[in-house]
Amino acid sequence: MLDELVQKCAQAKDSSRKMGMLSSDQKNEILLKMAESLMDNEERILEANFYDVEREKKKGLSNALIDRLTLNHRRIQDMVDGLKELTTLSDPVGEIEGMWKRPNGLTIGKIRVPIGVIGIIYEARPNVTVDAAGLCIKAGNSVVLKGGSEAIESNKTIVDIISKAAYRAGAPMGCIQLIEDTDRETVKRLMRMNEYLDVLIPRGGAGLIKAVVQNATVPVIETGVGNCHTYVDDEADLKKAEEIAFNAKVQRPGVCNAMETLLVNEKIAQVFLPPMIERFKKAGVEIRGCEKTRAICPEVVPATEEDWATEYLDLILAVKVVRDIDEAIEHIYKYGTKHSEAIVTENYSKAKKFLREVDAAAVYVNASTRFTDGGQYGFGAEIGISTQKLHARGPMGLKELTTYKYIVLGDGQIRT
Amino acid sequence: MLDELVQKCAQAKDSSRKMGMLSSDQKNEILLKMAESLMDNEERILEANFYDVEREKKKGLSNALIDRLTLNHRRIQDMVDGLKELTTLSDPVGEIEGMWKRPNGLTIGKIRVPIGVIGIIYEARPNVTVDAAGLCIKAGNSVVLKGGSEAIESNKTIVDIISKAAYRAGAPMGCIQLIEDTDRETVKRLMRMNEYLDVLIPRGGAGLIKAVVQNATVPVIETGVGNCHTYVDDEADLKKAEEIAFNAKVQRPGVCNAMETLLVNEKIAQVFLPPMIERFKKAGVEIRGCEKTRAICPEVVPATEEDWATEYLDLILAVKVVRDIDEAIEHIYKYGTKHSEAIVTENYSKAKKFLREVDAAAVYVNASTRFTDGGQYGFGAEIGISTQKLHARGPMGLKELTTYKYIVLGDGQIRT
Repeated sequence: MLDELVQKCAQAKDSSRKMGMLSSDQKNEILLKMAESLMDNEERILEANFYDVEREKKKGLSNALIDRLTLNHRRIQDMVDGLKELTTLSDPVGEIEGMWKRPNGLTIGKIRVPIGVIGIIYEARPNVTVDAAGLCIKAGNSVVLKGGSEAIESNKTIVDIISKAAYRAGAPMGCIQLIEDTDRETVKRLMRMNEYLDVLIPRGGAGLIKAVVQNATVPVIETGVGNCHTYVDDEADLKKAEEIAFNAKVQRPGVCNAMETLLVNEKIAQVFLPPMIERFKKAGVEIRGCEKTRAICPEVVPATEEDWATEYLDLILAVKVVRDIDEAIEHIYKYGTKHSEAIVTENYSKAKKFLREVDAAAVYVNASTRFTDGGQYGFGAEIGISTQKLHARGPMGLKELTTYKYIVLGDGQIRT
Repeated sequence: MLDELVQKCAQAKDSSRKMGMLSSDQKNEILLKMAESLMDNEERILEANFYDVEREKKKGLSNALIDRLTLNHRRIQDMVDGLKELTTLSDPVGEIEGMWKRPNGLTIGKIRVPIGVIGIIYEARPNVTVDAAGLCIKAGNSVVLKGGSEAIESNKTIVDIISKAAYRAGAPMGCIQLIEDTDRETVKRLMRMNEYLDVLIPRGGAGLIKAVVQNATVPVIETGVGNCHTYVDDEADLKKAEEIAFNAKVQRPGVCNAMETLLVNEKIAQVFLPPMIERFKKAGVEIRGCEKTRAICPEVVPATEEDWATEYLDLILAVKVVRDIDEAIEHIYKYGTKHSEAIVTENYSKAKKFLREVDAAAVYVNASTRFTDGGQYGFGAEIGISTQKLHARGPMGLKELTTYKYIVLGDGQIRT
């Protein structure tokens, strides 16, 4: 007898063949029915979630994590709206990326198709359950969800609701699977289910992502870790620089595209840093600076080597004064995570140099790194932000949840 | 002190930053100088290769592998021509895949960039050393090569020649690395060098590919295993069908896009199979058939379950009579490796159904599966044929050795 894990993954694979054949209209109908059913069952979801929250509070889960775990009317409404929003996005499946004729008369076409079965490994946020399932379905995939044990009752309830609704609306049985057994061995086995899973996308902190990369044999798309920098050049418009740096750090410090280190050209550091640091401090930001920064603002605590490499995800900022753009680029090369990097400058050649030489998913001139986001880029929704180089880079929307195949139309051609 | 493996991988990573900055002209100059140097040093290469071949003959290496290992004037000329050919192909690096404006005035562009450092793990063919290095360089990458121990002297000599030539022509020091230590532990460590390698591409048999997938933490692109089918429909033009099936099996049986199983609709099996099998036999093909095939051609040996799953890479063919297109598609789903699959039919709806429902890198109507090849598709050259779904599928040319980054041009935009 097959165990639960194999059974669920095999069902997902089976159903993925039918998923790939659904029309856009059928998939939109499924998403709408899932949304409706979530609304109709709000009370049931809140009840299950309350159970999770109470249990985790007793266990002493931190306030930040309790906040991520907690659902309320507003958050359920957001999930519902997210599903409805997906129905308005254009379906990448079936798009023809190119079609060409060969000298021997063969016509070759490159066509978008679903990936197949997508595994999502995530932490305590139960809204990921709905968001990820919706995106995978819209792109024609089946999905295997493995959320954190903290949210297990919420996730069980949500998946029960949306998978039944999806099935009633015409989705193949088994296209949304939740792995309920959350022990480490099960998760390790899940990561090696190459027979059933086409890709794994971890969504969460650096520890989770590293564990998946280290243990998976299924192809992984790494997401999210962002040690992002803003370099303020000596030819920057200092007013713009202040607004951009402030926004990149303070507007939402807990996310991966927030700035973690500010690099400032030494020629303007004397003028730029005192009011900038003052403003950060007023906003509650703790500053950790290099020696040159501390020579200008002596109240700043010294930054250690570790600070340059840290993704704080908090109101903490490392500040380093650099000689020139080359030192800034070197610092980013050494400590960056290839997520989002920005320069503020009015100099054309330096802007061009930064865009060319900095290797990151998104490189900015005169804008906040906070824009690295599927919605902000116009993709409508995102499953995560890739920080690796294969398959997809930066914000991943529906298209990044598909692959392609070649179709070749002949009239009897053979190879000579 | 760093060991050799770490040192070489670190050098490759270092050099990859400069590689990515080279212009197309510079890269073409490097390739031409590599080609010249190979020609000038033909004798040295043949000498080293002779040493490898003699040693392996004494060890009892099979004739087929000795053939793959052996270089001669013609094969060295092919490597030289391959490098020259690369200079005529257009450079994907810097291509703008799209550029769009957001409502807030941000301009977002998607630009092709090199992947960085590509690791190639391969077997006894020393020509892969040159072909792979050339492709990686043209796409702006550094390359870490790990060939089979059988070819070690040939590879050392070739890499010495081409890396010196590349350096003299302006390539950064260290952009072509050969891992000379071929013991298993070193290879395992290489597969986990996430800090230095961006992708691993195994080129070789099923065993090698499986070992890489199972052991690597660096992202892998699986290549090459092809259990390919041709389905002859009852509405096929039987003359076309015979030519296509014969070509797919016989033209070059040892490669991944050759046919391994022939599926024949039962309505035309009586007419189609006897002359078809007769022709295969004359060409030296051993036939292994299902019961229905043997009822028609009793001299055929019975196929076992294992035959349906085997990539023979030889003059052996499994033949199965199927009820209809659905049974053919089911058989392909169960036993196929998602490489290349063909239908022969004159029926429009059945052609469309096969193209839609068969999940493979390349799906053919009325043409030989042997066409799955970068050259045949018009890509100019290929590093391998991907049978996985992430990043690239089917023949991988220069574009598939690149990734992209987003550049975002602002005027002080911040996120609200």
